[in-house]
Amino acid sequence: MSDRVRVGDYVLLYHSDKVKLIVRAEPGKIISTIKGNIKSDDIIGLEYGCKVKSSLGYEFIVTRPSLDELMLEIYDRPTQVIYPKDAALIILKCEIASGCTVVEAGSGSGFMTTFLAMYVRPGGKVYSYERRPEFLSIARRNVSKLGLEESVEFRLRDVLREGFDLPDNSADAVILDLLSPWELLGEVYRVLKHGRKVAIYLPSILQVERVLRSYARHGFIEPEIVEVLVRRWKPVAEELRPDTWMIAHTGFIVFLKKP
Amino acid sequence: MSDRVRVGDYVLLYHSDKVKLIVRAEPGKIISTIKGNIKSDDIIGLEYGCKVKSSLGYEFIVTRPSLDELMLEIYDRPTQVIYPKDAALIILKCEIASGCTVVEAGSGSGFMTTFLAMYVRPGGKVYSYERRPEFLSIARRNVSKLGLEESVEFRLRDVLREGFDLPDNSADAVILDLLSPWELLGEVYRVLKHGRKVAIYLPSILQVERVLRSYARHGFIEPEIVEVLVRRWKPVAEELRPDTWMIAHTGFIVFLKKP
Amino acid sequence: MSDRVRVGDYVLLYHSDKVKLIVRAEPGKIISTIKGNIKSDDIIGLEYGCKVKSSLGYEFIVTRPSLDELMLEIYDRPTQVIYPKDAALIILKCEIASGCTVVEAGSGSGFMTTFLAMYVRPGGKVYSYERRPEFLSIARRNVSKLGLEESVEFRLRDVLREGFDLPDNSADAVILDLLSPWELLGEVYRVLKHGRKVAIYLPSILQVERVLRSYARHGFIEPEIVEVLVRRWKPVAEELRPDTWMIAHTGFIVFLKKP
Amino acid sequence: MSDRVRVGDYVLLYHSDKVKLIVRAEPGKIISTIKGNIKSDDIIGLEYGCKVKSSLGYEFIVTRPSLDELMLEIYDRPTQVIYPKDAALIILKCEIASGCTVVEAGSGSGFMTTFLAMYVRPGGKVYSYERRPEFLSIARRNVSKLGLEESVEFRLRDVLREGFDLPDNSADAVILDLLSPWELLGEVYRVLKHGRKVAIYLPSILQVERVLRSYARHGFIEPEIVEVLVRRWKPVAEELRPDTWMIAHTGFIVFLKKP
Repeated sequence: MSDRVRVGDYVLLYHSDKVKLIVRAEPGKIISTIKGNIKSDDIIGLEYGCKVKSSLGYEFIVTRPSLDELMLEIYDRPTQVIYPKDAALIILKCEIASGCTVVEAGSGSGFMTTFLAMYVRPGGKVYSYERRPEFLSIARRNVSKLGLEESVEFRLRDVLREGFDLPDNSADAVILDLLSPWELLGEVYRVLKHGRKVAIYLPSILQVERVLRSYARHGFIEPEIVEVLVRRWKPVAEELRPDTWMIAHTGFIVFLKKP
Repeated sequence: MSDRVRVGDYVLLYHSDKVKLIVRAEPGKIISTIKGNIKSDDIIGLEYGCKVKSSLGYEFIVTRPSLDELMLEIYDRPTQVIYPKDAALIILKCEIASGCTVVEAGSGSGFMTTFLAMYVRPGGKVYSYERRPEFLSIARRNVSKLGLEESVEFRLRDVLREGFDLPDNSADAVILDLLSPWELLGEVYRVLKHGRKVAIYLPSILQVERVLRSYARHGFIEPEIVEVLVRRWKPVAEELRPDTWMIAHTGFIVFLKKP
Repeated sequence: MSDRVRVGDYVLLYHSDKVKLIVRAEPGKIISTIKGNIKSDDIIGLEYGCKVKSSLGYEFIVTRPSLDELMLEIYDRPTQVIYPKDAALIILKCEIASGCTVVEAGSGSGFMTTFLAMYVRPGGKVYSYERRPEFLSIARRNVSKLGLEESVEFRLRDVLREGFDLPDNSADAVILDLLSPWELLGEVYRVLKHGRKVAIYLPSILQVERVLRSYARHGFIEPEIVEVLVRRWKPVAEELRPDTWMIAHTGFIVFLKKP
Repeated sequence: MSDRVRVGDYVLLYHSDKVKLIVRAEPGKIISTIKGNIKSDDIIGLEYGCKVKSSLGYEFIVTRPSLDELMLEIYDRPTQVIYPKDAALIILKCEIASGCTVVEAGSGSGFMTTFLAMYVRPGGKVYSYERRPEFLSIARRNVSKLGLEESVEFRLRDVLREGFDLPDNSADAVILDLLSPWELLGEVYRVLKHGRKVAIYLPSILQVERVLRSYARHGFIEPEIVEVLVRRWKPVAEELRPDTWMIAHTGFIVFLKKP
C-alpha cells in the first residue's frame, strides 16, 4: 500500500494547532497560507508524515485530515446537520456495523449518511430518502466526495405519504430526522427487523412529547430519550480548564425497539 | 436466515419497561419472573416478536436484547468499564471501521474490546494487551460470550515495560486505558499509522495534565480533550422531564494525532 | 457576643469529612459516634473552634453547622424541596434583599421560605401561602427551628381559588411552587410591584410550555427559562475529578417581569 | 413612595424581547431606537408601567431594568467578572445576609462587590481589597452607580504581602478572586469567624489542586468544589428547546470552613 500523497487526495498541512489547513493535492496549484505559499507539486508524491517548507521558510507537516475536519471543510451544508457526538451514539445503540441494512429519512446534507455508509461497509447498504430534490443532490455529491457512494442508495421520495419501498422486516436500523416522525412510526415498524431500533432525532422537546404519545400503539417498546453533551477542555497544561462556551443543544434522540 | 429462537440464544422476555428479563434459551429450564413462571421449552423455536404466557397468565414478548443490556447482564465486571457513550465517540473520532487494525491497552473487563471487535469486522483485528492474567481471562471469556473472539487477539504483556509486539506504522487506532499512559506515548507513536489517532481514557484531571505535558515531544499534534455527558429523560409524555440523577463523570478522553 | 456553645445550640462535631455529626446541646445527654461517646455537658460552655475527646480518645472539633447541612438534618421533609442551587439564583434574580415583601405559594416543607426569611431580614416579610394544613404546620415548625418565624407570615389559603389577601403592587417578588401556576398569573400580576419578577419552579417541561402560552396575555415581559446544574468535584488533590453522579434535574425555573 | 420616573433613574424602555433598551432619564435628551425616537422629557415624571410612543408610532413600556441587565449596561468591565450564577451560590453557601462583615480580594470590576453590598445591607460592610489602583477606582465608580458605596469599604492594598487590616475572627465570609489564593489561606483563617466560610473562585483546575494541597495545614475543614452551570431554554412555546450555546465554564468555586 502506497503511503504517499496522490493527485486528488485531501491533505492536512499542519504548522501548529492555530495554523493548519486542508487542501486538495492538484498539479500546478499554489497554496497560500498566512505563513507563506506552498507549491502543490512539492506535496504530490511526498510520504505522509514528511514536512514541506513554505516560501517564508516555515515548516508544515503533510498529513491526513480527520473525517470530521474534512467533512466540515468540503461538505456543502444547506441544512442543520447531525453532529458526530449524536451520530456516534446512534450508531452504537442501533448496533450499526458491517453488513447492516440501514434506512435514513431524510438525507439532509448527507452528514449522517456518511457516517452510516462508513459503518455498514462492506456488504451493507444505506437507503437514504429525501423528498426535496435539491437536498438529495447535495447529499449525494457530499457522500461522493469521500468515495462512499457505493454503500448508499439515495431515493427521492416523500416517505410520509408514500412510505419506504422496502420489504417488511428488512432493516437493521432506521434513523429519522424529519419534522413529524410520529406520522411515520407504523411504516418504520413494518420495515424494521424484530429486536432492532429506530433512532429519532428531534430539536424540540414538544416533538419528543408527540413521539411518546404515539410509539406504544405502533407496538414499539423500551423507549429511551437522551441528550448528548460534549464538553471540551483547553488542551494546554498551564491553563487546564473547560472551554468557556459549549454547544448546549443539538437535538433530543429517542430510541424505540421493535420487539 | 431463520428468525426463530435457538438453543443458546440470549432472549429478552418483555412484559413492560419495568417487568423484563434476559435469559438464555436452554432446554428444560423454568424461568421465574415476578409475573409467574415461563417454560424455556415454550420459547425455543418460537419466532422472535411472538408472545408467551406465564403461569399466572401474563403475556411476555419474546425478543432480542440490545448489545448494551446484554453486556451488563452477562459480562463479568471486576474493573471499571468504558461506557457506551465514551466508546461511541472514541470509535467515531478514531474512524474505526471494518478492516481496521486497532490496539488496546489494557483489556480490563473487555467492554471496550467488544465494541472494537464489532466495528473492525470483517477483515480487521483488535490487539488487546493486558498485564494481569486474571483480567485477561475475564476479558477473553466475556468477548467469547458474544462470539466475537475471532476479531480479537488477546496478549498477556506489560506494555509499559515491553511495548507492543507489532510493526511500525501498523495500527489504525490505539486506545489506552492505563494508569500512566504518558509513559507509553513513544511506543504508541511508533505503531500508529500516519494521520491516525490514539484515544486516551483518564479518570482524573491530573492524568490529563501529565499527558498534555508529554505529547508534543513525542511528535503528536491536534490534542483534543473531551468529556461526554449523556442526560436521560423520563420517557413518559405526562411527566416529561430529565431523570433526577445522571452519571456526571466516567473519564476524560484525550485524542492525539500522529501526523 | 458570647462565642461559646449554649444550651439549645445545634453544634457540628467534626472529626473528619467522613466522621462528623450535628447534635443539639442539651444537658445530661450522651452523644454516640462511631469513634466513641461524647458527653453533651463537655460541650456546653465550650468556645466554638475548640476540641473535645470521645470516650475512645478521638478528637472532635466543636463548630457550627452550615445552614444547608443543618436544614437537611433537622427539617421535616414530607414534600420535594427547592434546592439551595435553585433558591440562590431565584433570590439573586428576583433581587430579594433586606426589607423586601415576598410572596410564596405554596409553602411546602418551608425550605424556600427559610432562605427567603433569611434575606428579607430586617424589615421585610415573607407571605407564605399553603392550602394543605398539615404542610403549613410542618413548614411553620421547620422555620421556627431556626428562629426565623418573625419574618414569615404563614397563611392557610387556596390561592388558586381565593387569590392572595394582599394589596395591589405590594410585592417585591413572588415565588410559585404549585402544580398549575399558569392559573394564578393574573393574581400574581396584581400583587407585584412594577419592574419586579415572579419566579416559577416547575418539575416538568410541559408545565413550562403552559406558562409560556399564558404569560403574555397577563402582561408579563422578558421571560427567561433556566436550569441550574451544580457539578461537584471530589475534594482530594491526588484524585481530582468530578463526582461520578450528580443531580441532573430538580426543576425548570421561569422568570417573568411585570413591566 | 413615588412610583414615577425621576431625573437620573435608569429606565428600561421595552417594546418587545428583541427591541428594548436601558437609558438614563435626563432632561432634554432624545433617545434613538430602531423603532423611532423617544423624548426623554416624555418619560420623566411618568408612572412606571405606563407606555410612551416613539416618533414612528411604536409603543414602549416604561419600566425598571433588572439588576443584572443594568450592571451589564452601565458597569465598566476591564476584567473578567464573577457571574450572577456563581455569585448567587457563593452568597447562599457563605450565608451572607444583612449585618454581615464580608471580605473580598480582589475587587476586580466590582461585580461581586455589588452583589455582596446588596446583601449585607443594612448594618453590614464589605471590605474590598485590590492592589491595582486603576481597578480599584473602576470598582468604586461602578458600585457608586447603583448607590451602594456606603456598604463598601474599598482598600488599595496588596493582601498577599500585607494581609488584611482587620481584627482576628471578624469576618462572616471571605471571597477570594486572586491568581494564587493558596498563599493567603493563613490570613483568611485569621480574620474569619469560627464556623464561617471562605469561597475561592478559580478559573483553572490546577489552581484548585493547589488549594486542595494547602487548606488542611491551615486548619480548614469540609472542602467543597463545585461548578455551576446554567442552561437556558428558548422561551417560545412552539419551539421549546435549550439554547444552542451555553457558557460551559466561568470558574471552579472552592468552599472551606474555619471550624
